[in-house]
Amino acid sequence: MNRKSSINEKCGVFGIYGHPEASTITYHGLFALQHRGQESSGIVSTDGKKSYKHLGMGLVADIFSNAETLEQLKGHIAIGHNRYSTTGASKIANIQPLVFNLLDYQIAISHNGNLVNTTSLRKKLMKEGTIFQTTTDTELLVHLIARSKEDSIEDKIRDALSFVKGAYSIVIMTGDKLIAFRDSYGFRPLCVGKLGDNYIFASESCALDLVEAEYLRDVEPGEIIVIDEDGLHSHKGESTPKYCIFEYVYFSRPDSRVFGEFVDKTRRKLGNNLADEADIEDADIVISVPDSSNTAALGYSSQSGKKFEIGLIRNHYVGRTFINPRQSQRDFSVKIKFNPVGGVLKDKKVIVVEDSIVRGTTLKKLTRLLKKAGCKEVHVRVSSPPIKHPCFYGMDFPTSDELIANNMSVEEIKEYLDVDSLHYLSLKGMLDATGMDHSNFCTACFSGDYPIKVDKMTNKQSFES
Amino acid sequence: MNRKSSINEKCGVFGIYGHPEASTITYHGLFALQHRGQESSGIVSTDGKKSYKHLGMGLVADIFSNAETLEQLKGHIAIGHNRYSTTGASKIANIQPLVFNLLDYQIAISHNGNLVNTTSLRKKLMKEGTIFQTTTDTELLVHLIARSKEDSIEDKIRDALSFVKGAYSIVIMTGDKLIAFRDSYGFRPLCVGKLGDNYIFASESCALDLVEAEYLRDVEPGEIIVIDEDGLHSHKGESTPKYCIFEYVYFSRPDSRVFGEFVDKTRRKLGNNLADEADIEDADIVISVPDSSNTAALGYSSQSGKKFEIGLIRNHYVGRTFINPRQSQRDFSVKIKFNPVGGVLKDKKVIVVEDSIVRGTTLKKLTRLLKKAGCKEVHVRVSSPPIKHPCFYGMDFPTSDELIANNMSVEEIKEYLDVDSLHYLSLKGMLDATGMDHSNFCTACFSGDYPIKVDKMTNKQSFES
Amino acid sequence: MNRKSSINEKCGVFGIYGHPEASTITYHGLFALQHRGQESSGIVSTDGKKSYKHLGMGLVADIFSNAETLEQLKGHIAIGHNRYSTTGASKIANIQPLVFNLLDYQIAISHNGNLVNTTSLRKKLMKEGTIFQTTTDTELLVHLIARSKEDSIEDKIRDALSFVKGAYSIVIMTGDKLIAFRDSYGFRPLCVGKLGDNYIFASESCALDLVEAEYLRDVEPGEIIVIDEDGLHSHKGESTPKYCIFEYVYFSRPDSRVFGEFVDKTRRKLGNNLADEADIEDADIVISVPDSSNTAALGYSSQSGKKFEIGLIRNHYVGRTFINPRQSQRDFSVKIKFNPVGGVLKDKKVIVVEDSIVRGTTLKKLTRLLKKAGCKEVHVRVSSPPIKHPCFYGMDFPTSDELIANNMSVEEIKEYLDVDSLHYLSLKGMLDATGMDHSNFCTACFSGDYPIKVDKMTNKQSFES
Amino acid sequence: MNRKSSINEKCGVFGIYGHPEASTITYHGLFALQHRGQESSGIVSTDGKKSYKHLGMGLVADIFSNAETLEQLKGHIAIGHNRYSTTGASKIANIQPLVFNLLDYQIAISHNGNLVNTTSLRKKLMKEGTIFQTTTDTELLVHLIARSKEDSIEDKIRDALSFVKGAYSIVIMTGDKLIAFRDSYGFRPLCVGKLGDNYIFASESCALDLVEAEYLRDVEPGEIIVIDEDGLHSHKGESTPKYCIFEYVYFSRPDSRVFGEFVDKTRRKLGNNLADEADIEDADIVISVPDSSNTAALGYSSQSGKKFEIGLIRNHYVGRTFINPRQSQRDFSVKIKFNPVGGVLKDKKVIVVEDSIVRGTTLKKLTRLLKKAGCKEVHVRVSSPPIKHPCFYGMDFPTSDELIANNMSVEEIKEYLDVDSLHYLSLKGMLDATGMDHSNFCTACFSGDYPIKVDKMTNKQSFES
Repeated sequence: MNRKSSINEKCGVFGIYGHPEASTITYHGLFALQHRGQESSGIVSTDGKKSYKHLGMGLVADIFSNAETLEQLKGHIAIGHNRYSTTGASKIANIQPLVFNLLDYQIAISHNGNLVNTTSLRKKLMKEGTIFQTTTDTELLVHLIARSKEDSIEDKIRDALSFVKGAYSIVIMTGDKLIAFRDSYGFRPLCVGKLGDNYIFASESCALDLVEAEYLRDVEPGEIIVIDEDGLHSHKGESTPKYCIFEYVYFSRPDSRVFGEFVDKTRRKLGNNLADEADIEDADIVISVPDSSNTAALGYSSQSGKKFEIGLIRNHYVGRTFINPRQSQRDFSVKIKFNPVGGVLKDKKVIVVEDSIVRGTTLKKLTRLLKKAGCKEVHVRVSSPPIKHPCFYGMDFPTSDELIANNMSVEEIKEYLDVDSLHYLSLKGMLDATGMDHSNFCTACFSGDYPIKVDKMTNKQSFES
Repeated sequence: MNRKSSINEKCGVFGIYGHPEASTITYHGLFALQHRGQESSGIVSTDGKKSYKHLGMGLVADIFSNAETLEQLKGHIAIGHNRYSTTGASKIANIQPLVFNLLDYQIAISHNGNLVNTTSLRKKLMKEGTIFQTTTDTELLVHLIARSKEDSIEDKIRDALSFVKGAYSIVIMTGDKLIAFRDSYGFRPLCVGKLGDNYIFASESCALDLVEAEYLRDVEPGEIIVIDEDGLHSHKGESTPKYCIFEYVYFSRPDSRVFGEFVDKTRRKLGNNLADEADIEDADIVISVPDSSNTAALGYSSQSGKKFEIGLIRNHYVGRTFINPRQSQRDFSVKIKFNPVGGVLKDKKVIVVEDSIVRGTTLKKLTRLLKKAGCKEVHVRVSSPPIKHPCFYGMDFPTSDELIANNMSVEEIKEYLDVDSLHYLSLKGMLDATGMDHSNFCTACFSGDYPIKVDKMTNKQSFES
Repeated sequence: MNRKSSINEKCGVFGIYGHPEASTITYHGLFALQHRGQESSGIVSTDGKKSYKHLGMGLVADIFSNAETLEQLKGHIAIGHNRYSTTGASKIANIQPLVFNLLDYQIAISHNGNLVNTTSLRKKLMKEGTIFQTTTDTELLVHLIARSKEDSIEDKIRDALSFVKGAYSIVIMTGDKLIAFRDSYGFRPLCVGKLGDNYIFASESCALDLVEAEYLRDVEPGEIIVIDEDGLHSHKGESTPKYCIFEYVYFSRPDSRVFGEFVDKTRRKLGNNLADEADIEDADIVISVPDSSNTAALGYSSQSGKKFEIGLIRNHYVGRTFINPRQSQRDFSVKIKFNPVGGVLKDKKVIVVEDSIVRGTTLKKLTRLLKKAGCKEVHVRVSSPPIKHPCFYGMDFPTSDELIANNMSVEEIKEYLDVDSLHYLSLKGMLDATGMDHSNFCTACFSGDYPIKVDKMTNKQSFES
Repeated sequence: MNRKSSINEKCGVFGIYGHPEASTITYHGLFALQHRGQESSGIVSTDGKKSYKHLGMGLVADIFSNAETLEQLKGHIAIGHNRYSTTGASKIANIQPLVFNLLDYQIAISHNGNLVNTTSLRKKLMKEGTIFQTTTDTELLVHLIARSKEDSIEDKIRDALSFVKGAYSIVIMTGDKLIAFRDSYGFRPLCVGKLGDNYIFASESCALDLVEAEYLRDVEPGEIIVIDEDGLHSHKGESTPKYCIFEYVYFSRPDSRVFGEFVDKTRRKLGNNLADEADIEDADIVISVPDSSNTAALGYSSQSGKKFEIGLIRNHYVGRTFINPRQSQRDFSVKIKFNPVGGVLKDKKVIVVEDSIVRGTTLKKLTRLLKKAGCKEVHVRVSSPPIKHPCFYGMDFPTSDELIANNMSVEEIKEYLDVDSLHYLSLKGMLDATGMDHSNFCTACFSGDYPIKVDKMTNKQSFES
């Protein structure tokens, strides 16, 4: 499950209430959610008296690589967070969960998503003397909670949420409560599960599976759930579902259930529908761009009846920085990641299934590599429509200028890639694969239909000092 | 290409003569050979006047993660080495290439294989006042070279080799020569290629591919090749090929050519032959234990006509140390590595192709995981015979006591794994897949037929202080 | 100038306005003030647009040990801070200078001293929704500044100061101003100097000397000085001088001028007065406990006419942690710090001058060492009165229980030390040495006369989470 | 006891036999000998079965800063070494003690001094196939020992020593013996002491003092002492004492006894004799360049009757690297090390005692600093003669070209320093201070009389690769 470098999810969140090994469970949960954020991770736990924190840059398994670290994260409540930054850049101070001292307790918060009206709100609070510690939109929400005159933490949260707009699937921990809530559109996933008597919140159900917890249901759009010693308390609010369709296309793990459905199942149907829309009669084999397109490729293969082969082997030893030759070999960056298997590809007409195209630069190198390995024909099939618009709700795309489909027609892209044919799955074909009402999904990045208006200045750098 | 933890190749070697970026090319070569040794790596280069060295514990991409390191490895000749220790344990001083000061020049050496008569030879030299710096068998060879009264380095090497027995595919660098040689059995692979006018030696041809060099041929068993400013000089010796069959079964990369044949092709035939020997008529799907068994599984699928599916997703984020839960969840170590895809496995009769079984403990956990994911039946098919004997020629197996097939019959292993059926490929089935004369291969680990006798005390710890 | 481990000054502060190498000058200033805080250091600079920060645990020369670090601290205004924690413990987040984002600018602050009414004020602000980032009293002041409704920064500061009580010598930097102020008692020193056209603030004048700046005058108690592009603007307030007498006794460097007088001169008079009060007629030599008592010992020697000798050599290689023998040698911790010079001490009646006694444990070991080295008699002379009370204004003493003079009479201390005689300088003798009006000094630690009342709960740990 | 940067002793050695905490005692011994080598340190211990080693760059207290490190150095025999390189440059591989595997045992060796006929010997051995691991002269000796055909280790050592010339005070450890020996001239010191029943060897007696061992006597020039379970065995050889006079002038600690006499006593007499030779009648005070000249300055003061003052305070916070201002302040490097005390120096005629002058550059800056601090006159008095010649026996001087007295007359040096007068102690005055026969000392660096001839090519870099 190595990921593309050009699209990034903001985050994965996790929380557990009541377990004697809360931080270890959280660590495993974050490990299962690693694909949702590989830049930094953190866990905050509490035993009701003190809170304990460990954060770091890098992968979960590296940050928590020694047992002592986890043992020092004492207590029966814990929350965790994997992050790939959208707002708030890559500062250490911005690594979540963020922890703040309120009057009577500490509050720790993990946020997946992106608020969109932060600029004006932030300015207003600063005028009144509020001092911000981070450049994140998440902190803004905490100041609003701290300043609320309401009594209970639930009411303070509801009060604070009345000021903000945007995408948020959030888990909050106080000294004696674990609280989860989701914006009324439900852009990003969040589910609730149970391990024995202990409740768990997680971005995707694969995190429940790894810790052997049972999946109960999604936290609903607009719902606030509070876990305390008396159990689960649900506070429902208004909702207009606008689920992020990209979770099915690429983000979520195939073995997860999100928005109520298994990802593997939907992703296979994307492949089926793709084969229906534009198969190549005389192609010899179907291959995938591993690993993210494997499921769609198998779906394509079974629907089209064409043989699935492993034509590209992904090299998992590639680290963050890899030094290229000075007398630069062409396409080296792709060659170190993918080994084409000559025996499979040689003299074949090949259908290559890819889940999405962002800039197109990597795919261009890859198809060139395939031709060099002896493919007679290369036909690219993409299991989603052309990406033409930026996301303001938690995905980290390049700017519009860099999106290839924003600048070229499909025919032009085909020319650019220098392939024998190119087909993108239609918007309808994609939405049909979900088996749900089409209106339940946000398709802004494909269609340009944005469910919420956005502050002009909201972008990743806007609060950087 | 994540590897098993229970079987380890000793090493990968690489060398290049005459290129202005010799060390960068070597770095890329080692990267392509990463699967042959993941414990430590090193590069030594020379500009004819001085030699430059950088060694480290860990993966190639981490050890050479900054460009300056490579720039400091100046010169037009370089050799490199990836290592998993067999003799010589895990001491820093033992990381190869080893470098020694002889009277007129420095000598750097990279060794894949294992000498077998070292104990007595080492003792003899020490009695005469020789002081050893490392605990490796490789150093022994260098002392023999240093003490030889012959004139040329080729003759010194031939003189030194007359004293030693065992498996060796070696690359040596002096101030103005690059020399490669292989024992007369040719246990371990070694090939020669060309990049422009520059000669390259590499354990597997995949390293030539990555640096865009052309594959010329194997260094032959018993041959010494010297590269100097006048080009390539071959000195052939006696040979009785006994190639390591395990290179085809598991070690080598599928896109490599070793012992003159593409690994992918032979490995696919192992799967074909396995299907011929023992298919299950009413099984629904064929899955692989990723990633090393993928090719054999596809071979099985195509021969049997049963559908290939991705039933297990390998998690590549797992680091060296991973902290398990204290209240230990059963089979956790396997669960973090493999995510079973419920939608694929549920209610299916599944054929699981695995390349080999060493201890059997991991496979037992894995099959339990498959059953838990809903498989109706689990049939294990192994693309090599039962492993019953240790290797003294460069593979790092557990002791005989730990080899499950040394202690149990196939029926007992089936019971232990708690699966519906189990079949190992026959010795004949395996050798047939190579398309070569059966006598060309060493099958000692399966059959117990050892081509060379071994010193009693030779084992990994024998020289440790 | 190694320091005692039992008494610690809170801090040294430094600031400069208008110099192209502001951060390098600040680094040198902090180096000269190293004795005032050895736990952590930091520098914040600004070029008017951005601010640049580098902080670290340890010594100044180590924290800023590479030139690049300083080059990255761009700009013409800089402030620095050396810290030994009193309130705020040893958290990284508490290392000063602290930096905060106010609406229109960033503010950086360096504080020497200790506020005394923080507990109640902090609680009040938190009730109104203020979130604290550190556990320091310094942050409290910044929140008061941020919330002030006044217009100019000077007025905001004056407004904020109206709420707080305690000891503070503070330097603040905004994007275009450097501001220094001192509480109305002037407990801790702070002076202003000039380097060319550029103004400098420093805790002690030795920092001005090192950077070759000219000493102008002290910042007066109750005064706020603002430096901007138009020069120096003084805003004087009420004042009732209560200078910390311990600056003369021990803290300040002998070559500094504090409270308007050279420390060396006053400290020599402490030695003179001590000799006048209680010389030993037939003693042979006067030695010092190096290095802090050297000046007083020379003063004693010249007044008494007895020969000064170097009887103890201080070992400056002792690091923070030194591993003692398990079968513990007696007094080892002192033996590694002080080498007694046998030839000097053997068979001599020795007067040992020490500046102050806190717990007495080190001195006891030291006098035992002297006797073992052959001293016939050991007479301890202390150049300050018995310390009986804690300090709430910026010195870090042990608790009252640990102060030996709080628990024993002078006679009992003499018995405990097992020396031939012991004399403490009288309060009058100490104050006379200053040549100033006695009422100008705070002598609380000796006399118990506290100029300001203190919050019950104010102590080092009170805000720790 | 901070040291000059321009003269360096090669090493300090230490060894102990029979103590359960051998490595901890050795650590303390090395700590006491820190002034003899500040570049690297190491300890090797043995329990008779295995040997244990820890080496590092830096100061003793830092290299052994955690208790576990020492606990892992098990056993009852240990040797240690502090090093400042002369031959063998600063390679990690050259850090002593060096450890080598001989046939029946390991041998660890610590060497103070410098062999002078290494080039030819080294070449001879390499021709015969010997491979060297380091570039040190010490390893040469070990190869000679390993190749000796004698039976006992004592005889092997004597055999090996018959081939080498030069200065050596060496401690060797085998699995069951501790052996110390000194060249027949006894250039460098080495003494033997006893702690309970356990024998100790140390370069200076101050190391015995710190570990509370009793000083027995010096290891004599030409003597080999072996300690084993039967006690001490002495093997005396020929001797012609040529003690290094510089040990008294500067190197050794004042509280040590070397060559049978206390350093403090001799150094004081150097000061006495200096006052007799050239006092300044109307000077006001005598000050020292701290810390190495303190004892000589006190000797000068008492002989001349002039008052001793602390006119310069040495700053001990200065680390290895200190970043100077870019717009360079004059003499900054000296200003950060020495704080002149204005009150002491102002308007005074000052005699400055310095132990030796090497390049003269630091002293020039220092005297300028004194004048700037207000001295009316500055008279430099040096407690040794002009240094005109290099040392080949273990001191690390600059090359002859850099020695100021090799290039200028005393009058010219006075002009260069820009002082009011300058006097060097005469050779006779220096030797008289020792109270021994003048012929017992090597004075080569002053007089040019070298007791042993030297190989042409022997210098620090000669074996570097």
